[in-house]
Amino acid sequence: MSQYWSPAVRELTPYVPGEQPREQLVKLNTNENPYPPAPGVGQALRDYATDHLRLYPDPTSAALRKALAETFQVADSQVFVGNGSDEVLAFAFQAFFCHSAPLDVPAISYSFYPVYANLYGIELRTHPLDANWEVDIESLGSAPERSGVIFANPNAPTGHAHSLASIEQLLQRVTDRVVLVDEAYVDFGAESAVTLIERYPNLLVTGTFSKSRSLAGLRLGYAVGSEELINGLQRVKDSFNSYPVDSLASVVGIAALNDTEHFETCREYVITTRERTRQRLESLGFEVLPSKANFVLTRHPDHAGAQLFAGLRERGILVRHFNTPELNDFLRITIGTDDEMDSLIEALQVICA
Amino acid sequence: MSQYWSPAVRELTPYVPGEQPREQLVKLNTNENPYPPAPGVGQALRDYATDHLRLYPDPTSAALRKALAETFQVADSQVFVGNGSDEVLAFAFQAFFCHSAPLDVPAISYSFYPVYANLYGIELRTHPLDANWEVDIESLGSAPERSGVIFANPNAPTGHAHSLASIEQLLQRVTDRVVLVDEAYVDFGAESAVTLIERYPNLLVTGTFSKSRSLAGLRLGYAVGSEELINGLQRVKDSFNSYPVDSLASVVGIAALNDTEHFETCREYVITTRERTRQRLESLGFEVLPSKANFVLTRHPDHAGAQLFAGLRERGILVRHFNTPELNDFLRITIGTDDEMDSLIEALQVICA
Repeated sequence: MSQYWSPAVRELTPYVPGEQPREQLVKLNTNENPYPPAPGVGQALRDYATDHLRLYPDPTSAALRKALAETFQVADSQVFVGNGSDEVLAFAFQAFFCHSAPLDVPAISYSFYPVYANLYGIELRTHPLDANWEVDIESLGSAPERSGVIFANPNAPTGHAHSLASIEQLLQRVTDRVVLVDEAYVDFGAESAVTLIERYPNLLVTGTFSKSRSLAGLRLGYAVGSEELINGLQRVKDSFNSYPVDSLASVVGIAALNDTEHFETCREYVITTRERTRQRLESLGFEVLPSKANFVLTRHPDHAGAQLFAGLRERGILVRHFNTPELNDFLRITIGTDDEMDSLIEALQVICA
Repeated sequence: MSQYWSPAVRELTPYVPGEQPREQLVKLNTNENPYPPAPGVGQALRDYATDHLRLYPDPTSAALRKALAETFQVADSQVFVGNGSDEVLAFAFQAFFCHSAPLDVPAISYSFYPVYANLYGIELRTHPLDANWEVDIESLGSAPERSGVIFANPNAPTGHAHSLASIEQLLQRVTDRVVLVDEAYVDFGAESAVTLIERYPNLLVTGTFSKSRSLAGLRLGYAVGSEELINGLQRVKDSFNSYPVDSLASVVGIAALNDTEHFETCREYVITTRERTRQRLESLGFEVLPSKANFVLTRHPDHAGAQLFAGLRERGILVRHFNTPELNDFLRITIGTDDEMDSLIEALQVICA
């Protein structure tokens, strides 16, 4: 603690991202895509006229927003872009959730949500997952007053995804405040709620290029919603940083969006490998929660999460272990290539033997 | 206004950056460098292993911070990096200036400061410039209580720079809160206060790659200060976005820092052209405030700022006009190449004839 810090900043508990190791490890800890970005990305970088970097980016990111609008079949004015979906989420908390009532959020979800709430002084009302480790979407919309509702679909780190029909039920109940559906993992098997934005002006859907577009290193995220919600995000962004999306990120993002075939191929590989991994984990006695994301949450009846984590680490395999009472038994394992998952299974066979 | 926006967000007046025109114009409006970034920047992009973009960046930006630490002869732990110095400034406002007393700031300075203050609910105490349009640095440090002090050196949009000695006098008076010296333009002729950070743990110096490193399109900024200040910035950043500096920006920034010769050559060109431009403007009857930045603030006794701005715009030359009572008479003109400044002078000869 420093005497120079703002009082509220002394009370922050920052988010801790998964380790980015310098050694060579089988890296299954931060839900990165095991496949490279679209070939057009490399081409875009090689073709980029470097001299152009001396100029500021377009503060409205018009070209990238247009490419996203075409992808999602919405108007350009219904798309917002930012420096990773983390920044977009931070802006959304500030733009929409700073009201006196609490924000409804699943008790187990993306662990950055409580950090944002703390940063902006927003009270949280947490809703336990149900007996199947699924978000209780009915409970999320049950309070008489709220500052908003946020949940991830598929949820992290559990992987379960709700149907569009159940999300629409929530939207029919919650009309006074923003409902934010965080779709970071949606492309690995869930249904996107973007198709609902025309009918629900309070629905904001966020997404990222980090997972299904293999561009975690580039920091590109977006939100899709009604023009009034997008304008709210724009107000906060324009009070914070005129150009959070740099010129290279914009060009690279567009190149990634343009290659639908690469996108489809990679996500199908991930889905196939996930189901194969699930079966093999189950054959080793693991319980594996059904997942529509590029990771699985799994536990073994006879081996503690911390012990499995340490055993894998010793064998050069890095997974994520959350040291919280609810998740302590589990490992969250990113879906890598088939070879990487073979290494994982072989290591677990030895550890659990 | 939208019913869904947070109440405080309804009250924001966002910053408006200078226009980024799509037509071909002589662009002297946003203080970009007229020279390209270091040749190593293009090489770094061409050599970049695109597959690496599938992985998250190093959340600590260790390599880039090390390169900056070497440049400034400080420890790595005394350097913070962010998505442009705008983001670094936003983090600093939140980390250090959220106290009950007001923040001391020059009445005329970077127009983003009041926007940040509004975003974080910080009261400002403005100090008029003196008769020479210089920041009154004695007045800035004269209050008995404050949440901090911030000023730009050189100041924007006036261009005047204070000596290190006068900044040190301020630091001897203000020891209770952070003094932030925004050095976006320091490389065009002013003295950096980075050499004072060892003696003043409450001194934070911010800088950018946008101006003297010709990388406005890339969004890289930094802060240098005591470890306790850098940790304060880190706390806010880690509660907002784990990786605001992407992997490409990091590599490109390091390439730019490595080319001292290119850096020196370009800034000397800008300085020489600035002095030449100043003389030529004076010969047309303009008053030109002495500038240590890559722009000049200038006015003509017989021609209003808005009229000059419009006349130049008609002739394909874009400069910046601030429509405020204090600055209404003036134009802020970025220093471009000699050819660009020749076009400017020729156009003004016609307009003022």
